[in-house]
Amino acid sequence: MSHHIALVSRPRIAPAPVRARSSAGPAQIRRALSGPGPRRNYTTTVRVATDAASASSSAADDAVDDPYPGIDTNGVDLDEFEQFVMSMQADFIADMEALDGSEDHKFGLDAWVRGEPGSGFGVTRVLEGGDVFEKAAANVSIIRGVLTPERAKAMSSRGRDCVDPAGGQPYSAAALSVVIHPKSPMVPTFRADVRRFTVAGTSWFGGGADLTPYYLFEEDAREFHAHWRRVCDAHDPEVLAKKMCKRWCDDYFYIPARGEHRGVGGVFFDDLQATDAEAFTRAVAQHWTKSYQPIVNRRRVEPYGEEQMRWHQQRRGRYVEFNLLYDRGVRFGLDGGRVESIMVSAPPRVRWDYDVQPAAGSREAALVEVLMNPRDW
Amino acid sequence: MSHHIALVSRPRIAPAPVRARSSAGPAQIRRALSGPGPRRNYTTTVRVATDAASASSSAADDAVDDPYPGIDTNGVDLDEFEQFVMSMQADFIADMEALDGSEDHKFGLDAWVRGEPGSGFGVTRVLEGGDVFEKAAANVSIIRGVLTPERAKAMSSRGRDCVDPAGGQPYSAAALSVVIHPKSPMVPTFRADVRRFTVAGTSWFGGGADLTPYYLFEEDAREFHAHWRRVCDAHDPEVLAKKMCKRWCDDYFYIPARGEHRGVGGVFFDDLQATDAEAFTRAVAQHWTKSYQPIVNRRRVEPYGEEQMRWHQQRRGRYVEFNLLYDRGVRFGLDGGRVESIMVSAPPRVRWDYDVQPAAGSREAALVEVLMNPRDW
Repeated sequence: MSHHIALVSRPRIAPAPVRARSSAGPAQIRRALSGPGPRRNYTTTVRVATDAASASSSAADDAVDDPYPGIDTNGVDLDEFEQFVMSMQADFIADMEALDGSEDHKFGLDAWVRGEPGSGFGVTRVLEGGDVFEKAAANVSIIRGVLTPERAKAMSSRGRDCVDPAGGQPYSAAALSVVIHPKSPMVPTFRADVRRFTVAGTSWFGGGADLTPYYLFEEDAREFHAHWRRVCDAHDPEVLAKKMCKRWCDDYFYIPARGEHRGVGGVFFDDLQATDAEAFTRAVAQHWTKSYQPIVNRRRVEPYGEEQMRWHQQRRGRYVEFNLLYDRGVRFGLDGGRVESIMVSAPPRVRWDYDVQPAAGSREAALVEVLMNPRDW
Repeated sequence: MSHHIALVSRPRIAPAPVRARSSAGPAQIRRALSGPGPRRNYTTTVRVATDAASASSSAADDAVDDPYPGIDTNGVDLDEFEQFVMSMQADFIADMEALDGSEDHKFGLDAWVRGEPGSGFGVTRVLEGGDVFEKAAANVSIIRGVLTPERAKAMSSRGRDCVDPAGGQPYSAAALSVVIHPKSPMVPTFRADVRRFTVAGTSWFGGGADLTPYYLFEEDAREFHAHWRRVCDAHDPEVLAKKMCKRWCDDYFYIPARGEHRGVGGVFFDDLQATDAEAFTRAVAQHWTKSYQPIVNRRRVEPYGEEQMRWHQQRRGRYVEFNLLYDRGVRFGLDGGRVESIMVSAPPRVRWDYDVQPAAGSREAALVEVLMNPRDW
């Protein structure tokens, strides 16, 4: 469990075969979700449990005819960026399974389609109870729709000029979101996403990657930010300097009621429309593993006890507070999205104890100090 | 630990002595809260831990001179309803400590004042780790302020006619909120509050009490609702029939993203301005213990194991989702209130596991069924 693994993300545009698939029946078995209600307009197409036996079934036979084995794309023809997010999901999962190292806990596959043909689909992949990762998720969603007046108005007020505030324009959205909640309080949580939103031929890109430690290792925070500075420096400096991705990340992941930031930050951007916005967005996703893996390998061997686990779970409460109170993506997703694909980002075990105040000079207090006063790492 | 206790709420208007107080120093020791930030405009006046030694110190000596021993009212003269909520808090805590039965876990006392003299104060009282109650809280807050334009506009749009939408009018608010999270998944969570909001000489009353079971015992739900029907029937039938407190409770405690209600409901009302609104509100608070105590006594002896504890913690996740996503009081409170006095309502141990679906015909499925389709108990 303490072996170190060197991984390299593989920049790759062509769709990668998704490795897990149902061994129990045809690829497009549709199973009605058990919950009723007008907003539950989703159908599960295939579900594979996280045990090794079902995950190891090979999809090689179908790979030529079916680029996304086990996944019903619901009549949506994927463009290059959408193929990229599907491919990145498979790569990231392969990297995280190797990093976790568990033989019998792999990412399960839960694929679902939206109501009408052509209106989109999603692929939710979750690992629970791994050796290093207590809960890890990587979700793709590909949506086609027509803007409601409410949403169009909100978007045009945020400066998206070609959006008609009256609504009615068709849009498409593609996103890959990942979150890794390690078992050890010494290994930070990693959250990241890439997304594209398109209306009337114009696309905006967004994404990022950020680190939420429970115990502060300054070396980790410095290395993580240095990694992302290098990625940013390799792209349009003018746009990125203007956008100040690090500062943007600190500003976004903030809990006003607590006066605390969620973690030590990283990179975050939205509404990016520069010439190389898509290339930058792809580069961000391709660097997720490289930015996180050395930190996992360093900290997985740190010892900890009951007291640190308690602090871990208390701090995970803050993670939930941010997600449910302030995260735009979560709140938007819960307003009509597939709820389990959104709430999968919640940490597994969480505690709320009354008014926990770390002792002055403690390691816990040192963490809170940097969460209240973000540093330039 | 399984003894049954018969309790009767004691209707009482005069302020009751708060039993716990600091044994370490003068009553109005002020300690700055450790968190910085512009919204943390609160000072803790006295803090007493939940251990029996400090809680047992008597306040009898001060009772004549100091009606709220250990509590700095920050220059606010309490009117009769405010005295009532202080008194009810003490009564409810005494009832819950007797019901819990733990010798060495009592409600601690955390009293705090808002920034300027005369702008209000609060009394947060929390028991953690009791024999029956894993976490229980009863909070008073008494606030004096001036309406902001945003809040005035929201209030007048909700039909509060005498509120000037431009803001600037003085207001006062008084509330007692309680929540009981039992350790056993067989004992339901109880949440209740009473509140009064006053602007320009007009007062609106609100409050309620509701039950969130983790395993369904139909007898408990029936008895709880029958109790509250009797309380409602003893008051202005026209107003209460119009307000349909049971239906109102079901409507309010609802998670749209899940298509689920939070629990089996109870009674809930807001903006009540009828002739006997205050008397009804007081009666509600006076009946909390009587509606909950027999259920606790019946279910505390039910056996349970690991599997039921896991379900308990998963369902508590729904409780948090409702509180953070939809509860008006929580969201309002976090926007400038004392955060720990709001978040104390969160359950202690919580889990989020991916896409938990109870097996058909299981006890867990029976619970979800009534949460999706509220019954007339």
